[in-house]
Amino acid sequence: MSSEHVAGLPSSVDVYDTTLRDGAQQEGISLTVEDKLRVARQLDALGVRYIEGGWPGANPKDAEFFRRAPEELNLEHATLVAFGSTRRAGVKAESDATLRSLLEASTKAVCLVAKAWDYHVTDALRTSLGEGIKMAFDSVDFLVKQGLEVFFDAEHFFDGYKRNPSYSLSILDAAEQAGARTLVLCDTNGGALPFEVEEIVARVSEVSAAQIGVHFHNDSGCAVANSLSAVRAGATHVQGCINGYGERTGNANLSTVVPDLTLKMGIETVPRERIQLITSLSRHVAEIVNLPLSPQSPYVGASAFTHKAGLHVSAIARRPDAYEHIDPETVGNGTRFVVSEMAGRQSLLLKANELGVEIRDEALSQVLERLKELEHKGYHFEVADGSLELLLRLSEGWTQDFFSLESFKVLTEYKEKGESVTEATVKVVVNGERVIETAEGNGPVSALDAALRKALRPYFEALSQMHLTDFKVRVLDSDKATDATVRVLIDSSNGDDTWSTIGVSSNVIEASWHALVDSIVVGLIRAAASSVYL
Amino acid sequence: MSSEHVAGLPSSVDVYDTTLRDGAQQEGISLTVEDKLRVARQLDALGVRYIEGGWPGANPKDAEFFRRAPEELNLEHATLVAFGSTRRAGVKAESDATLRSLLEASTKAVCLVAKAWDYHVTDALRTSLGEGIKMAFDSVDFLVKQGLEVFFDAEHFFDGYKRNPSYSLSILDAAEQAGARTLVLCDTNGGALPFEVEEIVARVSEVSAAQIGVHFHNDSGCAVANSLSAVRAGATHVQGCINGYGERTGNANLSTVVPDLTLKMGIETVPRERIQLITSLSRHVAEIVNLPLSPQSPYVGASAFTHKAGLHVSAIARRPDAYEHIDPETVGNGTRFVVSEMAGRQSLLLKANELGVEIRDEALSQVLERLKELEHKGYHFEVADGSLELLLRLSEGWTQDFFSLESFKVLTEYKEKGESVTEATVKVVVNGERVIETAEGNGPVSALDAALRKALRPYFEALSQMHLTDFKVRVLDSDKATDATVRVLIDSSNGDDTWSTIGVSSNVIEASWHALVDSIVVGLIRAAASSVYL
Repeated sequence: MSSEHVAGLPSSVDVYDTTLRDGAQQEGISLTVEDKLRVARQLDALGVRYIEGGWPGANPKDAEFFRRAPEELNLEHATLVAFGSTRRAGVKAESDATLRSLLEASTKAVCLVAKAWDYHVTDALRTSLGEGIKMAFDSVDFLVKQGLEVFFDAEHFFDGYKRNPSYSLSILDAAEQAGARTLVLCDTNGGALPFEVEEIVARVSEVSAAQIGVHFHNDSGCAVANSLSAVRAGATHVQGCINGYGERTGNANLSTVVPDLTLKMGIETVPRERIQLITSLSRHVAEIVNLPLSPQSPYVGASAFTHKAGLHVSAIARRPDAYEHIDPETVGNGTRFVVSEMAGRQSLLLKANELGVEIRDEALSQVLERLKELEHKGYHFEVADGSLELLLRLSEGWTQDFFSLESFKVLTEYKEKGESVTEATVKVVVNGERVIETAEGNGPVSALDAALRKALRPYFEALSQMHLTDFKVRVLDSDKATDATVRVLIDSSNGDDTWSTIGVSSNVIEASWHALVDSIVVGLIRAAASSVYL
Repeated sequence: MSSEHVAGLPSSVDVYDTTLRDGAQQEGISLTVEDKLRVARQLDALGVRYIEGGWPGANPKDAEFFRRAPEELNLEHATLVAFGSTRRAGVKAESDATLRSLLEASTKAVCLVAKAWDYHVTDALRTSLGEGIKMAFDSVDFLVKQGLEVFFDAEHFFDGYKRNPSYSLSILDAAEQAGARTLVLCDTNGGALPFEVEEIVARVSEVSAAQIGVHFHNDSGCAVANSLSAVRAGATHVQGCINGYGERTGNANLSTVVPDLTLKMGIETVPRERIQLITSLSRHVAEIVNLPLSPQSPYVGASAFTHKAGLHVSAIARRPDAYEHIDPETVGNGTRFVVSEMAGRQSLLLKANELGVEIRDEALSQVLERLKELEHKGYHFEVADGSLELLLRLSEGWTQDFFSLESFKVLTEYKEKGESVTEATVKVVVNGERVIETAEGNGPVSALDAALRKALRPYFEALSQMHLTDFKVRVLDSDKATDATVRVLIDSSNGDDTWSTIGVSSNVIEASWHALVDSIVVGLIRAAASSVYL
């Protein structure tokens, strides 16, 4: 757990994130341009040095990303990088379409990929080794002369070096001569092991004056260790993806590599005080790519610092470093104990204090029972503080007097090649008056939301300040197909404050309704607490 | 990719599986005795040397496992091991309850855990360092004299050694003197890095004559690499769990360590011809513990040999070793291709062949354009082969003549404290006849599904064989709240065959409808292809 700097290691390493390019290659990941912009903002907040935004020549979505980036991203810390391949065989650099599209991306830096394994030059590109080297030289030279910082990504470097080291080294040499800033050794097929990496990187460091970078895939389960070994051997630029996203088995997991380098090897990576953002960043990016983050993820996973009942809680409290490899707060994570009856009471009491709800001992037991019951049905209160607050308040005798529901009705009509319409009607009682309102929406939930707000707004001015900011649907037992249980999560905000509410049902509309009503009720409670209108 | 034996490495390593003991500590895993027996049979079939079955003294379920094991497991290859701690402080070995329960487990081998970090002896056990050493010696001595093979698990060894090497070494020495077969160095808190492991294991190998074993956790993301480093430094016994199960971030993943050692370092682990069982074993065990296996898992995951980028496909067919770090069949896995907007013509053509759709060159270009357009809107065809098939067929002039939709209508009515009802009405034209049907469902999608099937079933017998097996909803731009775009994925099956279809819309009901219709149309095409009724 020492974070002192270790002799012989570099004092700092450049972190180069390729989540938006190589990470997006993962099966099941499909990012919109909006998604990419949001991920880039997160990466910049963490303080990575480089963000590879995509391959503008290969993908119109990536071209759009680079077009929008200058205005929509105000990168504070990171440099945006566009990725592309070297010129095609037999074409002049200045007339190569890929190189032109790299220029059009208007970034300060580019990453150029070239084959560093002789076989791939002769058999995949079907050109001569000499032309392979010229393609590398010309392309780097062209872009450097346009004033760009060039990273040279030597594809299949490790496999190539093992078979024909002289070719692999001469292509690096060509890139270096042409002015590449960094020579990135890429283990494209992901099969390398740490000791061969250490040996090969050390050899390259000896013969090359340029900065050495590395790019690993996890096919041998060693992408993280390979990155660390490379740094020991002289690499000072490490590429990878948040949460280890990427094709096949994924890229080197930056959510692990960054804390390993910083906290264990004493090397500067992202600004030291920002490393505590890495847990929330990893979880946020997981939300954006919509893949659940493995609870086992080192440093950032929900179970990374979770202890089972067998261990003495008090012993850990006395000397955490005897039971945890690092202080979880350094990475913005926390120690968790698997919920026992006792731990449950404690944390619930804490939550009640946090929410400003006073709760008696007997009520606490009832809430715990109710919580267990509901979580068994699919509720998940850890992510729905608003609904938890209502549960706590109800257990203390509070009643929801803002309004009551009589009924609602939602109708969707759809005509092939024609228009579709969705409308909702709600019947509620407010202040003793029966109110009936109908509204249309983009879908059943937006129609319901609109109708309910229309019915309540005349009575609650505060509603005009409140809006939904996020809406998520998860099918829980998805193998029951359309009869599955559905969990709906809604995030809401009134400008100052945000809260999350939950609904669970086998009917997506009912689940949404429960989450919607909770959202509005919590909002009205917050408004009542901060004003005099009630 | 060399699997020749590397000079300086041991010729073989004993594989010691602790899935049933340490793996079962993972949050969310709860194995019945039946489950444990089934996992043990799988492990034996793979040919691991040792199976740690549980902690009979701490857990009545584990005691039952050991009671039933002799009759119900006919282990061919593996030796069953019972796990327990050394005697308590101040108690004679022969009267210690834990040691007695180890004897009662009636295994030939036992694994005894003892604290190898001075702090844990003085502050967790609250006894003297001298008594700590006696506890180790007496316990090993007692069990060896009962004729048992004893593995000595030196808990917190690496952390202890870094702080007080002399204590950590003297407890190993005590165990060795008492006749322990193997000294297992355990990184209990999981924070070790490969280079310190290599250094420390080499040091222990120098001073100890016993076999050295290792046991790693993945808290630094290096458990696999640490195991390999330890073997390079002299360890010939490696502990771990299938799929990396275990507390916090998990144990060393044997599904990765075993192929790494065997296929990459040329070391004998399980019998060579059985290593091809490891993919099916990993997936089978994942079924038993009821946690989905990460598709990214090295060697054994569903994506481990999946290729996406279009330019590679034809090249891979020509020379797979240039694109895959090992031959996937060696581990019982296989190469897979997926199609997405990144895909070139080649991979789309390959997919068309796989689906049995003949497609002309011009049509291919149209489909590629259409794919990009749709994926930009939120479609994601790599997970929806059924909808992709329809897209390919339509581009070749095929028309969907099974039925056409006139309109549908879905109504949900909900009464507070009362019943809720959802019904759907569809109007379709089949065989020139107009059919109108209404059905109820658990929610809008199940009602629509029921109504459509009711309308079509009289015309298509095959429908009765087809059913939905999975249903997923994803809100794409979820920060637009209830106006967000929604993507619905449906998996379907007819018993022999499965397919996935997709729908995207801002209205969840429309999105579901598109996925439903595609699902039924694909099913009808499959039925037509395999029967004469059309």
